[in-house]
Amino acid sequence: MFRSILIANRGEIAVRIIRACRNMGIKSIAVYSKEDKDSLHVQLADRRVCIGEGPAKNSYLNMERIISAAKNTDADAIHPGFGFLSENADFVRLCKENGIVFIGPSAEVIDSMGNKSNARKTMMEAGVPVVPGTKEPVYDAATGEKLADEIGYPVMIKASSGGGGKGMRVSRSKEDFEFNFNTAQRESANAFGDDTMYIEKFIENPRHVEIQIMADGHGNVVALGERDCSVQRNHQKLIEESPSPAITEKIRKSMNHDAILAAKAVGYTNAGTIEFILDPKGTYYFMEMNTRIQVEHGVTEMVTGTDLIIEQIRVAMGMELSFTQEDVEINGHAIECRINAEIPEKNFMPSPGVIKHLHLPAGNGVRVDTAIYTGYCIPSEYDSMIAKVIVHAPDRDAALQKMRSALDEMVILGINTNLDFQYQLMNNREFCEGKADTGFIERLLKLD
Amino acid sequence: MFRSILIANRGEIAVRIIRACRNMGIKSIAVYSKEDKDSLHVQLADRRVCIGEGPAKNSYLNMERIISAAKNTDADAIHPGFGFLSENADFVRLCKENGIVFIGPSAEVIDSMGNKSNARKTMMEAGVPVVPGTKEPVYDAATGEKLADEIGYPVMIKASSGGGGKGMRVSRSKEDFEFNFNTAQRESANAFGDDTMYIEKFIENPRHVEIQIMADGHGNVVALGERDCSVQRNHQKLIEESPSPAITEKIRKSMNHDAILAAKAVGYTNAGTIEFILDPKGTYYFMEMNTRIQVEHGVTEMVTGTDLIIEQIRVAMGMELSFTQEDVEINGHAIECRINAEIPEKNFMPSPGVIKHLHLPAGNGVRVDTAIYTGYCIPSEYDSMIAKVIVHAPDRDAALQKMRSALDEMVILGINTNLDFQYQLMNNREFCEGKADTGFIERLLKLD
Repeated sequence: MFRSILIANRGEIAVRIIRACRNMGIKSIAVYSKEDKDSLHVQLADRRVCIGEGPAKNSYLNMERIISAAKNTDADAIHPGFGFLSENADFVRLCKENGIVFIGPSAEVIDSMGNKSNARKTMMEAGVPVVPGTKEPVYDAATGEKLADEIGYPVMIKASSGGGGKGMRVSRSKEDFEFNFNTAQRESANAFGDDTMYIEKFIENPRHVEIQIMADGHGNVVALGERDCSVQRNHQKLIEESPSPAITEKIRKSMNHDAILAAKAVGYTNAGTIEFILDPKGTYYFMEMNTRIQVEHGVTEMVTGTDLIIEQIRVAMGMELSFTQEDVEINGHAIECRINAEIPEKNFMPSPGVIKHLHLPAGNGVRVDTAIYTGYCIPSEYDSMIAKVIVHAPDRDAALQKMRSALDEMVILGINTNLDFQYQLMNNREFCEGKADTGFIERLLKLD
Repeated sequence: MFRSILIANRGEIAVRIIRACRNMGIKSIAVYSKEDKDSLHVQLADRRVCIGEGPAKNSYLNMERIISAAKNTDADAIHPGFGFLSENADFVRLCKENGIVFIGPSAEVIDSMGNKSNARKTMMEAGVPVVPGTKEPVYDAATGEKLADEIGYPVMIKASSGGGGKGMRVSRSKEDFEFNFNTAQRESANAFGDDTMYIEKFIENPRHVEIQIMADGHGNVVALGERDCSVQRNHQKLIEESPSPAITEKIRKSMNHDAILAAKAVGYTNAGTIEFILDPKGTYYFMEMNTRIQVEHGVTEMVTGTDLIIEQIRVAMGMELSFTQEDVEINGHAIECRINAEIPEKNFMPSPGVIKHLHLPAGNGVRVDTAIYTGYCIPSEYDSMIAKVIVHAPDRDAALQKMRSALDEMVILGINTNLDFQYQLMNNREFCEGKADTGFIERLLKLD
């Protein structure tokens, strides 16, 4: 049993983990940057260690300082939260070398899932559907065109070394293939010094549906249903919900089954998420595996009645999962809205500063995960997400109505937030009808 | 459909009802006394009407002013909350005369259940078990002694006109009967000018277990399981939980069945509670029916996933219940601790005043129903209950641990509260083992 856990994170997820520690009678140790000295996670933890200044590389991303804080406080384990070092295999190895348990999967699994082409290969071998595409590298447009024909248009032409959208082009037909291939290849050569390309079927504006899984070290893997995270802006999720309004019971079962296959294929332990993209016909493909707890884990907790952070800690202590697949039952509908300190009217520019007045919604089926309070100064160094409003109700319409009420009641003065923007989304017909795909927000913003 | 509801109450229950109104798209109208002008319920409502000053008889108990406020604001209905006018049949009639829907049962039902000997008679006729006792008035000790023999000792000797503990005596054997009867009768004659007595079996330190029911105007009556409210001080509940750790599945079923019988016997509509006392052998008896929503309704909401206030409003609008008996499933375990502004060390003397700093617990499975905030001044005019901390977890042990964490995290500065007292109860062995009966707190305080 752990006596103490160091939390290598900040903000609401650090508070969330501290609460789980309290629930388990485990002492919590907060680390913090100088900018975060007045943060709620620092106040609520049993112990606290300053590990430097912002930017994060000098504090929350500084492995040596965090390990040193853990050793100095005699911490049995480290919970990484999400972001920062949560998917850093080197950090996991460093924990191990220092005799500290990392609350998450093994370094090997993180490495293998972090490499996207490796992950894709592993999933294909395990029988999990992946987006159809070329198996070998492609170096010229003529070869590419033949392969694109086989895959079927539209296709995505991608640079093997690509990233950040560079060296990527969509080709919608034979006619525009050569031009797009050459453009992408030229971009890749210029940007990465590598002209190796590959081609995949292009799924236009898919839904993003992911499965939460929990696995222990005794061979038990349980799927906890899906979250629909299609509402995104610049690949940042804005709204998450469970169940997904876009899938049938048949797809749900199949996705849960494939997620368990995926987790078992890599010998996964602890909390993980298998992300799928879903096309309008109901066909889905493995996208990636997130080897950590996610921001949106709360919606799964609400509909399953579980506590995923407690479960993570139990698994890390070597215990078996506290539930079996048969125990997992989805009750009602949960929705989460991420509240960010930002100005939607100015291209969602961050809006740090002092919160002059705060009133949080509460009550039956309303949960707010946050670390802000009246008088708290949101630092400019970190992510702009300041709160997660989560609601739970018997069905989706009731959950939508509950979220409208909750957002309507919430008051944050002193800074700008996306509260009104989220409120509008909760009244948007496309979203309310459950039809929002990953292109929804972009289309909506173009309309304005 | 109601367009607006006037809430004839204050504090956390007024806030709770306002939130339900928002959820349903119904405008809420707050009434308030001058002392309550800065109250959260006044701030959160869509409209607000000052109805006078404390004490309550000049405001929250003043029927004419409340009806007048409802008429002036064109309110379709009045929700009475609990306490104040919630079980006042005259007020229900006054609402009806003024064309305003009272959200609760009919005046006739309130009247009939308010008269305890009438309620007892009705329940006996319906086949609901009541505490064995005399059917006719008793005027002398000799007759009483014969009847006490038939009932079996210990017995409770009660004045028919009694109240507030006056004219009440326990007799534990034939030997002390005459003395106790005469003492009680003399007390009754002096206090009420009436020497009519009756005798009941005395159930010593029973458990208090109650069944929540919901009934609509279409003949549907649904039982939503029990709440164990045995932890009381001076007949004031301190802790409530569901399910009860004291009853078997067989007793549970039987109690739910009897509660439905009871509700049907009086043609009940809306939310109601059938209170039973349970002896250590598992025999239970009807105690009384509460014809209103109760303080502790939240624990039932947590384990059933329902919203009882929304359900009350739906029923009052003439709709059918949104669930059937088959839909009701008890999931996990919920506990509520009432947080009062009082000084446990000084015989729980009220402790009004300004809250200088407030931090509320939150997170997975933690709900706090309250109307207090940092800077709020708790007036001395009203009940000392300032918050209800409700937790929900997969089982009782996890719920206990969650409550400890929640109370541990909660910070209320500036006034005295029973927070530490409640925390100690959550660590008390007798309570944790599920063995606390209605005499538990009294025994505990005597030990100190």
